[in-house]
Amino acid sequence: MRYLLWAAWLLPASLSAAAPAPTPLTARLDKVTLTFALTPDGQPTYAVQYGAKSVITTSRLGLALVDGPSFEGPLEITDSETWEVDDSWNPVWGEVKTIRNHYRQLTVHLRQTQPPGRRLDVVFRVFADGVGFRYEVPRQADLSYFTVQQELTEFNLPANHKAFWIPGDYDSNEYAYTTSRLSEVNTTPIEAIQQKAAANRVQTPLMLKSDDGLYVNIHEAALVNYPALFLNVETQTYGLRSQLVPSATGAAAYLQAPEHTPWRTIVVSDKAAEVLTSKLILNLNEPTKFPTTDWIRPQKFVGVWWEMHVNKASWNYADTSNIKLAGTDWSRLKPNGRHGANTANVKRYIDFAARHGLQSVLVEGWNVGWEDWAGNWKEEVFDFVTPYPDFNVPELQQYAAAKGVQLMMHHETSGSVSNYERRQDAAYRFMKEHSYAAVKTGYVGRIIPRGEHHDGQWMVNHYNRTAALLGQNELMVDMHEAVRPTGLHRTYPNWLASEAARGNEFNAWSTGNPPEHETILPFTRLMGGPMDYTPGIFRIMLESWNPAQNKGRQVHTTLAKQLALYVTMYSPLQMAADLPEAYEQHLDAFQFIKDVAVDWDDTRVLLAEPGEYITTARKAKGREDWFVGSITDENPRQQVVKLDFLTPGRQYEAIIYADGEGASWDRNPMAYQIRKQKVTSKTTLTLQLAPGGGAAISLRPTR
Amino acid sequence: MRYLLWAAWLLPASLSAAAPAPTPLTARLDKVTLTFALTPDGQPTYAVQYGAKSVITTSRLGLALVDGPSFEGPLEITDSETWEVDDSWNPVWGEVKTIRNHYRQLTVHLRQTQPPGRRLDVVFRVFADGVGFRYEVPRQADLSYFTVQQELTEFNLPANHKAFWIPGDYDSNEYAYTTSRLSEVNTTPIEAIQQKAAANRVQTPLMLKSDDGLYVNIHEAALVNYPALFLNVETQTYGLRSQLVPSATGAAAYLQAPEHTPWRTIVVSDKAAEVLTSKLILNLNEPTKFPTTDWIRPQKFVGVWWEMHVNKASWNYADTSNIKLAGTDWSRLKPNGRHGANTANVKRYIDFAARHGLQSVLVEGWNVGWEDWAGNWKEEVFDFVTPYPDFNVPELQQYAAAKGVQLMMHHETSGSVSNYERRQDAAYRFMKEHSYAAVKTGYVGRIIPRGEHHDGQWMVNHYNRTAALLGQNELMVDMHEAVRPTGLHRTYPNWLASEAARGNEFNAWSTGNPPEHETILPFTRLMGGPMDYTPGIFRIMLESWNPAQNKGRQVHTTLAKQLALYVTMYSPLQMAADLPEAYEQHLDAFQFIKDVAVDWDDTRVLLAEPGEYITTARKAKGREDWFVGSITDENPRQQVVKLDFLTPGRQYEAIIYADGEGASWDRNPMAYQIRKQKVTSKTTLTLQLAPGGGAAISLRPTR
Repeated sequence: MRYLLWAAWLLPASLSAAAPAPTPLTARLDKVTLTFALTPDGQPTYAVQYGAKSVITTSRLGLALVDGPSFEGPLEITDSETWEVDDSWNPVWGEVKTIRNHYRQLTVHLRQTQPPGRRLDVVFRVFADGVGFRYEVPRQADLSYFTVQQELTEFNLPANHKAFWIPGDYDSNEYAYTTSRLSEVNTTPIEAIQQKAAANRVQTPLMLKSDDGLYVNIHEAALVNYPALFLNVETQTYGLRSQLVPSATGAAAYLQAPEHTPWRTIVVSDKAAEVLTSKLILNLNEPTKFPTTDWIRPQKFVGVWWEMHVNKASWNYADTSNIKLAGTDWSRLKPNGRHGANTANVKRYIDFAARHGLQSVLVEGWNVGWEDWAGNWKEEVFDFVTPYPDFNVPELQQYAAAKGVQLMMHHETSGSVSNYERRQDAAYRFMKEHSYAAVKTGYVGRIIPRGEHHDGQWMVNHYNRTAALLGQNELMVDMHEAVRPTGLHRTYPNWLASEAARGNEFNAWSTGNPPEHETILPFTRLMGGPMDYTPGIFRIMLESWNPAQNKGRQVHTTLAKQLALYVTMYSPLQMAADLPEAYEQHLDAFQFIKDVAVDWDDTRVLLAEPGEYITTARKAKGREDWFVGSITDENPRQQVVKLDFLTPGRQYEAIIYADGEGASWDRNPMAYQIRKQKVTSKTTLTLQLAPGGGAAISLRPTR
Repeated sequence: MRYLLWAAWLLPASLSAAAPAPTPLTARLDKVTLTFALTPDGQPTYAVQYGAKSVITTSRLGLALVDGPSFEGPLEITDSETWEVDDSWNPVWGEVKTIRNHYRQLTVHLRQTQPPGRRLDVVFRVFADGVGFRYEVPRQADLSYFTVQQELTEFNLPANHKAFWIPGDYDSNEYAYTTSRLSEVNTTPIEAIQQKAAANRVQTPLMLKSDDGLYVNIHEAALVNYPALFLNVETQTYGLRSQLVPSATGAAAYLQAPEHTPWRTIVVSDKAAEVLTSKLILNLNEPTKFPTTDWIRPQKFVGVWWEMHVNKASWNYADTSNIKLAGTDWSRLKPNGRHGANTANVKRYIDFAARHGLQSVLVEGWNVGWEDWAGNWKEEVFDFVTPYPDFNVPELQQYAAAKGVQLMMHHETSGSVSNYERRQDAAYRFMKEHSYAAVKTGYVGRIIPRGEHHDGQWMVNHYNRTAALLGQNELMVDMHEAVRPTGLHRTYPNWLASEAARGNEFNAWSTGNPPEHETILPFTRLMGGPMDYTPGIFRIMLESWNPAQNKGRQVHTTLAKQLALYVTMYSPLQMAADLPEAYEQHLDAFQFIKDVAVDWDDTRVLLAEPGEYITTARKAKGREDWFVGSITDENPRQQVVKLDFLTPGRQYEAIIYADGEGASWDRNPMAYQIRKQKVTSKTTLTLQLAPGGGAAISLRPTR
């Protein structure tokens, strides 16, 4: 670890009141330059350059408070410091074994020029691939408790970039991306998942591409005790204005000094692939405080799940509606005969997982309350401990243990978080008693406490507290419908994955995800952390499950692309999302899902362009095996893959799972071909990707 | 138990659509007559008579829903039924041993005349001393989940009655009462405790007295899953309009059919005393479902409490401000030397309780977090399990057990209820592990979830859930700053008392409670249930505790009146609120507190007029002892008390604790005299009450 103080105390504090520090102040690392300046009227601003190119033009900084004089200016600089850090750390799990953390830090100490002279620090960290900065409110006599009404941070862009965006919905990220110029951002025509706000409001991570070849990603890191950051696009001037998700009262964040905001992050490169491999957001998160992490295991799982999405089974046990949790005798309900989470069916999944070496079986719909769980803004829906009459907890516990498989718990809250919080203690005790090691949580619907949003401060605290509480219990978690990640899996490595985007499931019951979707997600949603996208759907035409209800529905990829997603879409928790019977018809292709790793020593993004294609190679943790995934949007593509990442002089067997002759996502998605080939580090493979297609390759040393 | 069907199915349901039932429909018991009628345009109305006198003139009924057609009319009657019930029941504890429950019920089935033809029932119960009614939304296809925007219930009064009211503050009941004509109701000049609403908004129980001699009390019974009812006074027409406390969203109640509202109650009599002995509200509550109740014990207690109110000690351990619960090392804080809840001081209270036969010792300020606990709308203030460094939990557990005394837990939430709910499981486990049998809860400050109110549906559910959860753990509770009671102590007999009014504590640090205050409370706040008023302050002039800080502050009664309150102010949980050293200076007077019962076989209100005087006699549960309390407002009074309630032919020793010569609350409050006298059922005692004074009498059979 190397800490360098490369310039300190530009001005002694005692002088600062009399003679404010001159601005601009700058910090630079490689091509990235950060400039801080006060305007003549005392407003703080910053700007970012990448080499000679402007990334962020002069943009305002500040915090508007509910209570008393805000940090909107006039402010003066009382002091500033710069530091350099260059060290490295090993994540508990991840895309690479070791992460370098190299940045130069500029801390600017500001004070209101008017009484009461409240103090605010702005801390910038300049990396080789971007900038992170945050506001820090130090301990001070005149500001203990305060409420942030709005954050004034701007990200002014020098030109009318191409943007990959989803609408600003405080309660959902489950949108397909729109690609447009900033000037054309308009969410009005897009159907709301929960509730859209202003027409020009978009979410982060926001991916941008400039005409002069810069790739810029704007997001945040370490979202703790603060609402998520949304962006209002100034379509005329290409400026982005901060919009914090409001609480039930309309104010954004209730805070107590000393406190700081999350880091605002700007990742920038002239290579798209470098955006995907950036570790800037992870580096801005805190290391874990968990005393041990050996109980955390990246893993693959199957589950009683997709069969509900394709209308082959139901979450609910009975078709009775208007159920009350308290006082219902569940044993007296009339079963509908389609309940997926029944003991026999779960055993079938356990058998399948055991046979194919998958670690876990998720079971959704095991617990009472699904008869009318969604859409009613109802507080008492689930109790998280009472199984339906046909789900035998101890029997399945024993059966799974005998087969060496773990059951994965499911806690759907239906957005009633106050109810979940009251029951979390008991629910986690239940998990420990019944040998569950991980839980998938869900937050479908409007939040209770009513008036709060999924992405507001109160819920952000809930998610983080839940990760911490599960960690104390040595339990892992996969959160669905939670706020989009910001690298907190470094701090909570038991938080294996989140959903927080439009997953594969949308293909089952909506217009679906367009073929470009998976080429955008790594540049947007995945910048913050792993996604439980639930890849691996083999039965692409959903009509084959239930012609009456799934008519015309399909997954918008080829089968081969579903395999490639296990590599292009990083997650330490990967579902084999289809049904056992679907896999059993294609065991040759399923072999890739069995083989592919979920934890990695190294990752190389070989080819990438957001919205078009991604080809990624990864080396399995602690092994010499490599896996390659290559995907395209709706256009067919030829991807030339040099295998120069392989160990020189060593021979590998490549198994290539490719689109078949004449394959295409819409007309012939099931056509795939598997071929084996001996390769070395000198081999170049040419992959032919079908429209909406992909290819997956496993590479194993021959001896 | 006797159920009589005295008239049923006025019209067969099949006919009702064609030929609506004629109105008015009536139900009568003794002098009370209830009339239900539809207006020509289909709005439901009711009226109440007491003999020939009008109690409630024709007044509208109805519910306004957020979702779809409301129950505002036009409605038609599809059916109606009448029943009679006359039975009795024995409360777990109470003012009397057996309670008669005699009422006639009229159920009116209503339906919207327009599609979707939603159905609503109005159920009236007519007692000899008033009427209760509620809305019931039956299970029906077109209405499962619904949101009440407002309740349309009116209470139109026939004249400009005298009213005893407090302002409509959704978060506090801690106001002194104003006595005025309805036409003069105006809360504007009154200083807000939390936040007042409209100038004409008042709280229930609302006590009214008509010029023609009727005493009318308007309140509600069984407030469950619904917000509290407030009343907007139409000062020109003497009408009262319902105002339900809003949730964070502005809507009032989120409900699921079948569901019903609380009972709206109108207690009426031409004798003030009969209002005080009415059991109408209790009868409208549900019996307890607790399988056992033998762990519930009415009791007296002392506590480390008043010494903080009189500035002799502090709740907080250190004077450091701006503390964060997480991460603070409490052992490193600098003690302020005034922390009341220290082990030695608590032992002193345990010794005192043991010496004088008081059951419990409350300790406030035992747990970390008091350094800046109030007023910051902060979520993480207390954890309810971590003692301050100077409070030794196991040592005190052992010490109290050895002395035969129980420690009473204290859980101040500072209004952060989401935080409390997350920690309740652990907090109650802590109580059981450390032999606590009861908890005093507190809800000082603005509620979190932010936007919710103390008296809204969400908090109402919290209080009830807390009583139930404590009941499951066989723990008793005394709630402060909770919603005012509505008789739910019948359902949750472990809910011994609530505050929910302006208690004795206000005398310590405000203008105090005027001498009339305690003569009004039984007619208002206590109509719903017992109050932990904390009587028994002996050192009336608070300056004697801390001249610098308590200058000019005093309790606004005589010492003798403090004794009388143990009888006039019913509660199964009575604090001896002053400090041991105060009692030790007046052990002769303290004898009454030692002797007085807290659970009763019988209660007779001998003399009563709201705002003026109350004289009550009660017979101790299972014993032949009687106790009498007599209080007056600021006027001296002579109260003539016939002891004809005593067992005829038996001799009793009366110990009379009376105001001394020249006593008065403001000039000579400490003057008291104690005399003993042999009495029988034929004796008449004449009590001379000083201004702001009172008298207490214990009556014990001489053999």
